[in-house]
Amino acid sequence: MTIKNYHLTLRDVASHDAEYLETVFSLANGHFGVRANDPIMGNPITGTLINGFYETSPITYGEAGIGYAQHHQTILNLPDLRHLTILTEHGHRFTKSRRTTANLDLTSGLLTEKYTLETMQGESIYLGVQSVIGQGQQNFWAVSYTITPENYQGILVVSKSIAVPAEAEELKSADPRKSRIAGLPECESDFITQDLQRYHVKTRRTQESVTMYLGSLTPNCSLLRQPVDLSDGRPHVLEYEVYVGDVGEQNTIDPAATFLVNSWVGLQKDSRDFWDDVWDRSEVTVSGNDELNLAIYYNVFQLNQAAGRDGRTNIAAKGLSGSGYEGHYFWDTEMYMLPYFIYTNQPMARQLLFYRFQTLPQARMRARALGVDNGALFAWRTINGEEASPYFPAGTAQYHIDADIAYAVGRYYEITRDLDFIIQCGFEMVLETARFWENFGSWNQVDTTSRFEFHTVTGPDEYTALVNNNYYTNRLAKHNFNLVVSLAHEILADDPNGLEPFGLSEADLDVFSNLADHVYLPYSRELRINEQDDSFLNKPRWPLSKSTPENFPLLLHYHPLTIYRYQVSKQADTLLADYLFPEDLSLDQLKREYRYYEGVTTHDSSLSRSIFSILAARMDDPEKAYRYFMDTARMDLVNLQKNTADGLHLANLGGSWLALVAGFSGFYVQDEVVHFNNHLPQEISELTYRMKIAESVLEISLTATTTNVTVISGPIPTYGVSVNGEMISLVKVS
Amino acid sequence: MTIKNYHLTLRDVASHDAEYLETVFSLANGHFGVRANDPIMGNPITGTLINGFYETSPITYGEAGIGYAQHHQTILNLPDLRHLTILTEHGHRFTKSRRTTANLDLTSGLLTEKYTLETMQGESIYLGVQSVIGQGQQNFWAVSYTITPENYQGILVVSKSIAVPAEAEELKSADPRKSRIAGLPECESDFITQDLQRYHVKTRRTQESVTMYLGSLTPNCSLLRQPVDLSDGRPHVLEYEVYVGDVGEQNTIDPAATFLVNSWVGLQKDSRDFWDDVWDRSEVTVSGNDELNLAIYYNVFQLNQAAGRDGRTNIAAKGLSGSGYEGHYFWDTEMYMLPYFIYTNQPMARQLLFYRFQTLPQARMRARALGVDNGALFAWRTINGEEASPYFPAGTAQYHIDADIAYAVGRYYEITRDLDFIIQCGFEMVLETARFWENFGSWNQVDTTSRFEFHTVTGPDEYTALVNNNYYTNRLAKHNFNLVVSLAHEILADDPNGLEPFGLSEADLDVFSNLADHVYLPYSRELRINEQDDSFLNKPRWPLSKSTPENFPLLLHYHPLTIYRYQVSKQADTLLADYLFPEDLSLDQLKREYRYYEGVTTHDSSLSRSIFSILAARMDDPEKAYRYFMDTARMDLVNLQKNTADGLHLANLGGSWLALVAGFSGFYVQDEVVHFNNHLPQEISELTYRMKIAESVLEISLTATTTNVTVISGPIPTYGVSVNGEMISLVKVS
Repeated sequence: MTIKNYHLTLRDVASHDAEYLETVFSLANGHFGVRANDPIMGNPITGTLINGFYETSPITYGEAGIGYAQHHQTILNLPDLRHLTILTEHGHRFTKSRRTTANLDLTSGLLTEKYTLETMQGESIYLGVQSVIGQGQQNFWAVSYTITPENYQGILVVSKSIAVPAEAEELKSADPRKSRIAGLPECESDFITQDLQRYHVKTRRTQESVTMYLGSLTPNCSLLRQPVDLSDGRPHVLEYEVYVGDVGEQNTIDPAATFLVNSWVGLQKDSRDFWDDVWDRSEVTVSGNDELNLAIYYNVFQLNQAAGRDGRTNIAAKGLSGSGYEGHYFWDTEMYMLPYFIYTNQPMARQLLFYRFQTLPQARMRARALGVDNGALFAWRTINGEEASPYFPAGTAQYHIDADIAYAVGRYYEITRDLDFIIQCGFEMVLETARFWENFGSWNQVDTTSRFEFHTVTGPDEYTALVNNNYYTNRLAKHNFNLVVSLAHEILADDPNGLEPFGLSEADLDVFSNLADHVYLPYSRELRINEQDDSFLNKPRWPLSKSTPENFPLLLHYHPLTIYRYQVSKQADTLLADYLFPEDLSLDQLKREYRYYEGVTTHDSSLSRSIFSILAARMDDPEKAYRYFMDTARMDLVNLQKNTADGLHLANLGGSWLALVAGFSGFYVQDEVVHFNNHLPQEISELTYRMKIAESVLEISLTATTTNVTVISGPIPTYGVSVNGEMISLVKVS
Repeated sequence: MTIKNYHLTLRDVASHDAEYLETVFSLANGHFGVRANDPIMGNPITGTLINGFYETSPITYGEAGIGYAQHHQTILNLPDLRHLTILTEHGHRFTKSRRTTANLDLTSGLLTEKYTLETMQGESIYLGVQSVIGQGQQNFWAVSYTITPENYQGILVVSKSIAVPAEAEELKSADPRKSRIAGLPECESDFITQDLQRYHVKTRRTQESVTMYLGSLTPNCSLLRQPVDLSDGRPHVLEYEVYVGDVGEQNTIDPAATFLVNSWVGLQKDSRDFWDDVWDRSEVTVSGNDELNLAIYYNVFQLNQAAGRDGRTNIAAKGLSGSGYEGHYFWDTEMYMLPYFIYTNQPMARQLLFYRFQTLPQARMRARALGVDNGALFAWRTINGEEASPYFPAGTAQYHIDADIAYAVGRYYEITRDLDFIIQCGFEMVLETARFWENFGSWNQVDTTSRFEFHTVTGPDEYTALVNNNYYTNRLAKHNFNLVVSLAHEILADDPNGLEPFGLSEADLDVFSNLADHVYLPYSRELRINEQDDSFLNKPRWPLSKSTPENFPLLLHYHPLTIYRYQVSKQADTLLADYLFPEDLSLDQLKREYRYYEGVTTHDSSLSRSIFSILAARMDDPEKAYRYFMDTARMDLVNLQKNTADGLHLANLGGSWLALVAGFSGFYVQDEVVHFNNHLPQEISELTYRMKIAESVLEISLTATTTNVTVISGPIPTYGVSVNGEMISLVKVS
């Protein structure tokens, strides 16, 4: 396996929008993220995001209703850590800056940039910036500035501090309404010594706080006023480190001592060790297209940067690369991002699932608020576990999140056999979601058939809302019922009394089995395809042929009522279920469904194209699969959705990995057999990647004519492995 | 015809909530309304409402969308005109007040009340209050206070003015955000002479203004400081008059001169003349139950008080009796209140329809905002013609308002043959709404049937939202198509080129006819009833049997998602269509539908019971009709919905008249025949009422055994009259 290019650079960096660059070159470690603001011209009071550190504010409705989400939850935009101020000895400030290079080393996590700075008076210098974020030492970020003379060769005065927003000061005394509107936190800052700043930030409503320390790593360096003499013509280096405390952590660390341990060099090593491990687990190499290969590396890199590792946080829709979607966690985690972790890093996957588990109390209350007397309904968008979606038709109505979480628990268990997790956390989630479906659904007798149905729901396709029997929702709920039964049997096999703590009897399991058998799955006899819902196929088609590019995304150009009354999908919906359950339908039916739904799908969601790619591969149309894949793989690098400035599309990053693994290599697990099917498009001469199934790290390598699966480490697996439809025996390479 | 009791009094007045009394005894004249605030203890800065005088404020959405309604429109709560301040010569203020009697003379519009007033020191006097609102002279209201000594017999100082709200003063200088939040207007007040106050109020955003004048009618009476010597032991009378200008009117009147013309006595006569005319047109007498008879008088009285007469205003959901629903006009006007005016006072009906006509430009723009390229969509709730509903699933999605307005135009024309109005206004409304349906709907081929369907709509039943093919909506749209064709032929009959100004050809009419023929009307073959919509009958029924009274109204206790997923109706929906189109279905089918929908209807809307009463009468179940009728007839007088304090339920007032006329007397018009069918319940020994059809005023009188229709004034009609299924010849009584 050859590592080809682990450096992300962009041609003509300065030509890109600053906000786009800030996102793309952001560094993060699951705990916090640092956007790549221009250190001179960037906004010094915003640029840092701490996972799960948010403020609330009341949601205002033009017309409120019972049970509506009550509070916005908004991730805090904290001060930029990269900012510094440089003056000449005459007090001229360097205010103009041009980023000339940016290079993100995906092997080590080191970000290297070069800037040319200029004062209003025309004096100029060069500024090199290297920065790295701690990965084992997750509280640290460090930066090294290298200043080199250009036409200015005198004395400089450099100052660096964590900026206290002026508005925050003003707020202390003033209008109580303002905090409700702005949600700005209380900030306090002091200088413990000339080279150590403490910065304390506390939210006003949630009363959560974080302490940060900024320290100089350069001996005898004053933070606020450090002279640098350029007259020797040589580069001068200033190094700083920032400690970003945990949310709610007591202020008991000794940052000075800690900074010594985590020096600039030490932190670089810490970061490199982490990425060595990541690439060892999840190396993905695509031969034949270096740009594409780099994009895949980048996506995997950013997935790892974004994911909360502490069990109290999760993966926000934009990761820690931007504050879009307010730092909220959605179903995207379980359906688009978690698979990467389940198949490459099980402890991480377990932590992400644990996050959901610890929101179960809120989910139970939410079910009650929705008139369901038993079970739990997880929040559609949330940080703290409470529902934060102010628009229920495309929020709470997406009940499928319950079954999505259950599905992920099942997939995790399937390949880990981590019964401990199931007993401690997983089973309760699967049981409570199954109970929700049981009490939410209703029986409908149609002729001689008893159907169990779900009404007034919204599926993944947010262009179709409040419908009956959304195929995806029903299919996943059916799986939820089946899963609770199969996991119960796993527990019983381990301990015949194992279900007692859950208050569950064999009779209860029979009820769930019966429900699973009777969940209604809408099917059109005329078209011989699964129907997206009871009414989707009856609606007129959106006149896509008459629409021009500026009409998209539809949600930014049309009233929801206009969109809802047409047969038009924002993203894969029924096809998403087809992808999850390959055994459900014949290849012929899949082809019919694909053709049909492709004709009514706009891909206005970044969650769409990866699924279309995977299914095209499964249909053995690798060229179409490749075209969709190319859009997913490079979505943020080419700014396909035009909003990368707000943050990366994390679900799409996960989706692009899925497109390679579940698409081109046809990976899926069923009945304790791991399947691989070679659907490599001709544009890719070789695809090699690693995954861990049970205790074994596998390396899968595909070319047009070969499909090899070998064991890299761990035991020879006991599960079956099927390659291109035939069972094979694995060998271990040393 | 005997007038039995035209006086509304309440037993034990003081035991009622003040806000309830303020509503019930409110006086209004279509231009403005004066709530019956306690003149001593009531809130002096609120109590007067001017029809159509509103302020806007931005609608805030937790999550906004394209095409959403942008601005709240809120009727202004203006200062109470009834308030006065009384002090003893020692400066003790009368602060306690008890209303001992209240008597509203429905014949004359004179409101007579008595109060006992007390100071903190225990001094007491009696205060009599008589007030009247101008009906011909619609800018005037007058009040006469009679002060009589009780234990206090010294000198009083009486002051009376229109109160300037303190907040309004504060706002002048302060925070611009506050006006957005509060919407309080700018107020200016000055005293032109000691007995004449001018009060000018101007909205901040809409920049509309009204000028009011308060003047003393008692000679040499100072508004701010008028001594009254009670030592003679006699009653002392103080009379005042208020001029409430028109919205936007220039400040050019000479109030002093005008006040002379409209003196206290003059205004009483003006009011009495108006009510004489009203009762002459629309006398309704129910024998056998005086309380019920009074309730009906009251309802008709309040309908007349509420309705805007100037063509620029309409009938708010609460009339001018309270600020509930923000003073907005809804579909209720056309479907529940307008029939009373169409059949008793055609010029008023014409003015109410003209109000809609002058909002056509806004309605055209609204159609575009909803993605419909042709036609007009009237606002669901509005004052100025723009959509003001912040919750579109139960607002804009109720597209049926378009067909409701068209329906009303048709009914108006049917009995007036007012072709002038049709050519000037009515036809354009019917045409633009038909064009909306044409472009909003879509063809759906089901087997060999081509259906014209309407998707993602909400019918009258707001407990079922965003469904396909709501029966009511589709049936009314079908009528809209038929109506545009029939009115076009009326125009053509008058002038063969009459359609040219509308850009309409014969071919266009064929298109509308074809659409009318193909509008899909959902029908359940299993239940042999019309289906409320495509999915209503498939949903589980709300467990009404398990619900207790405190669960109602459901919308105040359950999330909309909970309500929507059940088969439960807030009000008559399919049955409302059945009422409008008696020819559509057999009596057997009506009975099946009635039984079915009655079982799933909560009557949480005040628009429901009147329709259930009418249809029960039609099904010849007069006892059931009577029970529903009793709830509608006395809804506000017994505070059935518990919110009369916010204002009267105007639609229900209209509905109770309909229940008598369309229900017990079986009135409807079809194919130029006026039908009456006697369905009198045994609790009513005789029902007599008047209506005007074409140029003839008819009096209809029913007993258990007789049904008499006579012509009171105007010519013997040329249209057919059917009584109990047989055509009769009318005679004129002198």
